[in-house]
Order: sequence, then C-alpha cells, then structure tokens
Amino acid sequence: MLTNDKKILIVGLGLIGGSYAQALKRRGFSVGAVTRSQGSIDYALKEGLIDRGMTEVDPDYIAGYDIVVFALYPGVLLKWIEANQQYIKSGALLTDVTGVKSKIVYKVQAMLRPDLEFVGAHPMAGREVGGVRNADCSIFQGANYIVTPTAANTEAAIADVEELGRVLGFARISRLNPELHDEMIGFLSQLTHCIAVALMTCREVEHLSAYTGDSFRDLTRIARINDEMWSELFLLNKDVLLEQIDLFAGQMQAIREAVANSDTDLLRELMRQSTERRALFDK
Amino acid sequence: MLTNDKKILIVGLGLIGGSYAQALKRRGFSVGAVTRSQGSIDYALKEGLIDRGMTEVDPDYIAGYDIVVFALYPGVLLKWIEANQQYIKSGALLTDVTGVKSKIVYKVQAMLRPDLEFVGAHPMAGREVGGVRNADCSIFQGANYIVTPTAANTEAAIADVEELGRVLGFARISRLNPELHDEMIGFLSQLTHCIAVALMTCREVEHLSAYTGDSFRDLTRIARINDEMWSELFLLNKDVLLEQIDLFAGQMQAIREAVANSDTDLLRELMRQSTERRALFDK
Repeated sequence: MLTNDKKILIVGLGLIGGSYAQALKRRGFSVGAVTRSQGSIDYALKEGLIDRGMTEVDPDYIAGYDIVVFALYPGVLLKWIEANQQYIKSGALLTDVTGVKSKIVYKVQAMLRPDLEFVGAHPMAGREVGGVRNADCSIFQGANYIVTPTAANTEAAIADVEELGRVLGFARISRLNPELHDEMIGFLSQLTHCIAVALMTCREVEHLSAYTGDSFRDLTRIARINDEMWSELFLLNKDVLLEQIDLFAGQMQAIREAVANSDTDLLRELMRQSTERRALFDK
Repeated sequence: MLTNDKKILIVGLGLIGGSYAQALKRRGFSVGAVTRSQGSIDYALKEGLIDRGMTEVDPDYIAGYDIVVFALYPGVLLKWIEANQQYIKSGALLTDVTGVKSKIVYKVQAMLRPDLEFVGAHPMAGREVGGVRNADCSIFQGANYIVTPTAANTEAAIADVEELGRVLGFARISRLNPELHDEMIGFLSQLTHCIAVALMTCREVEHLSAYTGDSFRDLTRIARINDEMWSELFLLNKDVLLEQIDLFAGQMQAIREAVANSDTDLLRELMRQSTERRALFDK
C-alpha cells in the first residue's frame, strides 16, 4: 500500500523529478533526492521540494528509502541501477519516468536483485523548459499516466505504482505492455516531435514571426526540444518511429495528391474525419 | 482617416465578421451587417455586436456605409461584389479577411467600379469553432494582421486598412504583396493544417486518447477544420501549397534517414536549430 509513511527517493532532480518531489511533499511523503548538481539540491531544499539531497551515492542514505523513482535519461538509468542497486533496501519498489519502455524495462528487470521490484511508468506531461527550477506539479493535472507492467511484476507492486500516479495528480491511469506503450508513444509523441522539428528546419523561417498565426505556434511549441534526451529516445524506439513516420508521410502524400488533382471531395472527407476524431482528444 | 464617425458594414457575420463587429462597436463605430441567416442577425443585435442587420441586399441600406468588410468564403466574396457593387456608396473603402490573396485581390480590383477602392487584409486569428455565436474579439489580441496592397491602391486607403487592424486590437500590422502573403500563408497556415489533418487521419486513433500527452493535442488542435472553407483556400493557393508540402516532406525524410542511420549528431543538430528558431515565435 502506498501510504505516506513511505520514504521516496528521486534519482535525477530535473523538471520531472522535481515536479514529482513537489507533488509528493505536498501529500506528506518524506522525499529524498540524488542528483549530480549541488545547485539543484540547494534550490529544491530552499523551495521545500525535498527533505534531503545528495550529489554522491551514499549507501546508508540510499538504504533508507522504500520507493525509488528514476527520473534520468535512459542510458544513465541503466548504468545507475547496475552500479548502485546493491545499496537499495531489500523489498523496495522501483519505478521510472522514461519515455520509452521496451528497451528499458526488460533490461532493468533482467539485471535486478530478486528482492527488488521494478514497474515502469510514463507520466505524459512536460514543459518546453527543463531543470528543477521549472518544476511544477500542476503539469500533471488532467494528464495521462501509463504503467507498463511485465510478467515479472506482482499485482501489489503494479497497484502501488498506479496509486503513485493518482497521488501525483494524474487524471487518467492506464496499463499497457512495454511494446504497446512504445507504439503509442512513437505515434503520439515521437512522431509529433519529428514533425515540429521538420517544420522549424525545412526552410528559412527567421523573418516569418510577423506573419504567424496560432496554428504555426501550436505545431512548433515542442520544437523547443532537449536534443540530448530526445535523440536518445528516438533511437531507442527506432523501428516503431520509422513506421509511424512512414504512415504519416504516406497520408501527407495522399493530401498532396488531392490538392494537386483539385479533389475537393476527398479533401473535405479527410477534413470531416479529422474534425470528428479530434473531438475525442479534448482534455 | 479612419475615425469612428465612419459607418462600417460587415458582409458575412460568422466568427471573424462577428468578432470584427464586436471590436468596432466597442470602439464607437456604427456597425451594420448583411448575412444569410436571420438567426445570426438576431443574436448579434441582442449581444450588441451590430446596430442593424439585414438578410437581403437592400440598395439604400448598403449605400449608407463608408467602409465594407467582406468576411465571406472566397468564391462567395467574388460573386457578392460582382452582383452588388453597384449599390455601394461612391468613395467607399472595401477590405476583406480572406486567407488567400493573389486569386482574390486582383480579381476584385479588376472588376471594381473606379470610384471604389479595395485593399486586401488578412487577420491571422481564428478559433476551432465557427459562427457569430463564437465571436470574440479577444482573439485579435497579440495576433498578426497582414495588409496586401497592390499597385492599384492609394497610400491613404492602405493606411486606413492598417489603422483598422490597430483599432481591432492586432499587435503587429505588416504589409506584404499578395504573392508573398500567399507564400507565407502556404507555409505557416495551410501546410500546418495539412499536417494536422494527416496526423488525425493516417491511422486509427480513436482509442488513443487515454495515452495522449499535450504534444499530440497541440499538433491537432487545428485538425478541427471547416472543410468547406479550407478546401477552397487550399485549391486557391495550390501551387504554393504543393511546394510547401514538398519542402516539409523532404525534411521529414531527412529526419527519417537520420533515425534509420542512428545519426545522433545530425538529429541533435536539427533539434538545436529547431529550439533556437522557435524562440523567435513566442507571442
């Protein structure tokens, strides 16, 4: 049971780690952090996001926590667990916030000590700015949270990670296996980031801001992108992402042909379908 | 000079026509309307958006206005002017809100009585919902307004249409010739609408709403699209739109190749360029 007498350690105090910390502190949990930068810890202590923080992995400190949340880049996460899982308290529950799952969850579970349990999770929330100084747990309000259990997980641990999503304030908690998760995210999130970057880089745009309407702004908000993290996420989900790009590119070509052929009927049919479907996605 | 003793007639009382009326009434102008639906007129009168409205083209009524704003679909606009310009007061200033210019402005100016002047304009604002009942002039706040003069226009009339944009509340008023306007809009607005429709129609998406983050919502807000108006606008700007689709599609393929080749350096370079450029587009 995820009661707030559980002590929670956040590993990686960036935008998402910091927002987790803020939400959990407000709900009465004791929250610790391990992160590289002393400045991030100082800020989080001053703002009351955490109770304690360290830049080094101190075995006694790590061993004091019942739940460990990894809010790291994917490659760093795998290395951290490999190097430091020996210090984690027996029976602890581990989870993460990583944007891809198949290439992470199974590797973590395969290397994990048998007395620890890891349940993957993906909070579908973010901002165009990073770092703990931009932490803001209101980004979880109304947002989706996906838990990605495998056959290696117990129902009790899955339920606790789902409850963590509710405690953080997410509106909708879902379960997907890692493969289905990655397919959804390849389409909904990775493809959309590719599109935003392509729009922003396909031609000189510097002088266009005086002529922009909201549509271009909407489509490129996420063109402000953390290049280190997203390039890593793209390549960890390469096959799925290529498929989604091809699906989308094929439909762009169909629209192109309809325009080229002045096929008003087809254009209007696609626009009506698009309008009808979009209604399902209002928050 | 655009002083508020000028009487302004809005032809077509939809979302944009209604929002113009609301803004102009608030600034003390006398505002009339001609539109097809008596219900729209009744609503606009009740809400104080207009002083008077008619569903028929009454010559005496039309002749009472100094400025005529056409907020009609492109094809309807051309027919209306052809049929009814004879009733407009000599010396009146005409303008519009149409989303494409080359195929409209020159035709209007070619057919217009010599004692009337038409200066094209494009308010870069809108909503996902249409109709006068959704009129809201706050959509002009912070938005761009483009005036598209030609060699047929006088500086005085251009200045009045620019002043109209300021009176309506637009933040930035620009001048572009019709061809440059259409190229900008083909990229910034029409291409983005094609992308939104393609995203929404390239695969089954009905069950995905539980897994969506804000990025997919952002990129598809404009997937709610008026199919009659937008298909007409696309075809009126066909050559430009096809060029912009090809530019964008080429860049999507470049990103696809970078992913396929695990070319992290290229991906990160594109993402950094994208991030830097996007900063120019914040409102």
